[in-house]
Amino acid sequence: MTSEFAFIEALRAIATNPAARGLADDAAVIEIGGETLVLTMDTIVETVHCLPGDPAADVAWKLVAVNVSDLAAKGAEPVGCLVSYALGDEEWDHGFLEGLQQAATHFAIPLLGGDTVRMPQGAPRSFSLTAIGRGPKGCAIPSRCGAKPGDRVWVSGTIGDAGLGLAILSGHRFAARSDPVTADWLVRRYRRPAPDVVLGIALAPHVTAMMDVSDGLLVDSRRMAEASGAGIVISVESVPLSDAHREVAGQDLDARLAAMTAGDDYCLLFTAPPQRTAQIRKAAAGLGCEVSAIGSVGGGAGLALVHNGEPIPLPGHLGYQH
Amino acid sequence: MTSEFAFIEALRAIATNPAARGLADDAAVIEIGGETLVLTMDTIVETVHCLPGDPAADVAWKLVAVNVSDLAAKGAEPVGCLVSYALGDEEWDHGFLEGLQQAATHFAIPLLGGDTVRMPQGAPRSFSLTAIGRGPKGCAIPSRCGAKPGDRVWVSGTIGDAGLGLAILSGHRFAARSDPVTADWLVRRYRRPAPDVVLGIALAPHVTAMMDVSDGLLVDSRRMAEASGAGIVISVESVPLSDAHREVAGQDLDARLAAMTAGDDYCLLFTAPPQRTAQIRKAAAGLGCEVSAIGSVGGGAGLALVHNGEPIPLPGHLGYQH
Repeated sequence: MTSEFAFIEALRAIATNPAARGLADDAAVIEIGGETLVLTMDTIVETVHCLPGDPAADVAWKLVAVNVSDLAAKGAEPVGCLVSYALGDEEWDHGFLEGLQQAATHFAIPLLGGDTVRMPQGAPRSFSLTAIGRGPKGCAIPSRCGAKPGDRVWVSGTIGDAGLGLAILSGHRFAARSDPVTADWLVRRYRRPAPDVVLGIALAPHVTAMMDVSDGLLVDSRRMAEASGAGIVISVESVPLSDAHREVAGQDLDARLAAMTAGDDYCLLFTAPPQRTAQIRKAAAGLGCEVSAIGSVGGGAGLALVHNGEPIPLPGHLGYQH
Repeated sequence: MTSEFAFIEALRAIATNPAARGLADDAAVIEIGGETLVLTMDTIVETVHCLPGDPAADVAWKLVAVNVSDLAAKGAEPVGCLVSYALGDEEWDHGFLEGLQQAATHFAIPLLGGDTVRMPQGAPRSFSLTAIGRGPKGCAIPSRCGAKPGDRVWVSGTIGDAGLGLAILSGHRFAARSDPVTADWLVRRYRRPAPDVVLGIALAPHVTAMMDVSDGLLVDSRRMAEASGAGIVISVESVPLSDAHREVAGQDLDARLAAMTAGDDYCLLFTAPPQRTAQIRKAAAGLGCEVSAIGSVGGGAGLALVHNGEPIPLPGHLGYQH
């Protein structure tokens, strides 16, 4: 079987149009009629990207959310979406529609069309969604490749909650350790990611690079460093953890590294010059959003970690690798 | 299991944005920055929409072509596409990429992005594509619902070739009756549909309604009639057949009805006032395309057939019903 990496390399040779951005980003960018359109397409496969027990409404929500997350990282305002849906049984279909409507309303992304298909009996189904957004006016569309030495590295929200939610659903020992309300909250963070488009729009004028954290903070940070041809150093103790995370998994070095290598955060990772700090904090505070400075961009290459000022080795596993 | 019809009815209640056109059309239409964008998304499922023996390159071609066909019916010029691809074995992936590149070049629709996923072992895979087009300037975007009493009904190309190709691949008696060159040509019509975007663009200013013929001429004509609130009468003897079709399956009434109820033509079905006839013929001739007047729009409702001037009953099966 071809590796995803090898396949994407081969696709890149076909996708030579500038709007494809060399497939190095999570979205395509088209200039049209004086506007900039951002387009992204993500697929969720039963048993691969969601658990067999995940409610249909949550799968639909996640399908919308993972695409909206790519728009948020481009500072793009949602215009609409198209969905390709593989029919299931009546109850599942009903739940999916319910979650689709909830997500479309929550993220203000109207459903514009798509396709429905029927899979052969018993086959795992897959669901695709294309999201279309309108890029920011008056500033460049952020990409993952603009981080500059001297920049600060930031992340929005808290890291690792979805990973803990998945661990709880998978019967990890954390399940026994969590009170039901906390466990529910963490599971919801896994099943109902909530990327923040408005925050992405507010940040776009200030950032040098931006992308969403989907596969794990460390692997995504390394991707940003590599795409930018710069070095990113993250201070492990600065990575924001939720109260629920501290309660269930603690906040020692191991817990932090686990959080930073778990996926499904759908937060924003971004870099900006230090002189933008006040504007970034103000923009986030105005929206009631948390943003945390977690490191810096240097002249080296790749990713490095420090813990209380001391360099520490990278863990062997940085996150979900395609 | 929910019927596709019931599911789409339920989707319609969610897709209330005007750009969704009530999901009554094959594409969404967005006004943006002084341009009109047309968006469509279609999915091909292994074993459902393609045969197990279909070469990967042909599956990729068809995935692009069925979406381009929706753009052609809107008189839209391709801007780009996004593809969601489920990885297979190396040879299949290689063939798919080859066909994708051939189709992207043929239809001048650059690949802009997408997603790759891995299906569980042995599962049938599905492939989705979103095509984006720029709508015609200076005229309304054609839809399926504008047919007016007094209009002529037209179709481009020839009807039923892909259906014969599929029959040959399925071991139908036509296979024995066809010489190899003819059989290859018909199979190619099934595997490599060639919707004509340039013809769609040229026709758009003249038509009152336009859609592509994908599920069968009769079922699609009835959909146009119903969407337009008008009656469409088709003269069976006027439906254009290819030389290959005449040679292999003949042109008697049964052969004609079979052609009109087979799917996968990806021709254009359109209506226009009689006074546009010369312009339509000239536009098509200038592009080396065949267009045929096959009937008329009346004041009734639904679809009716005449054969050499005599009304005949509709066949029980009009085409592929979702």
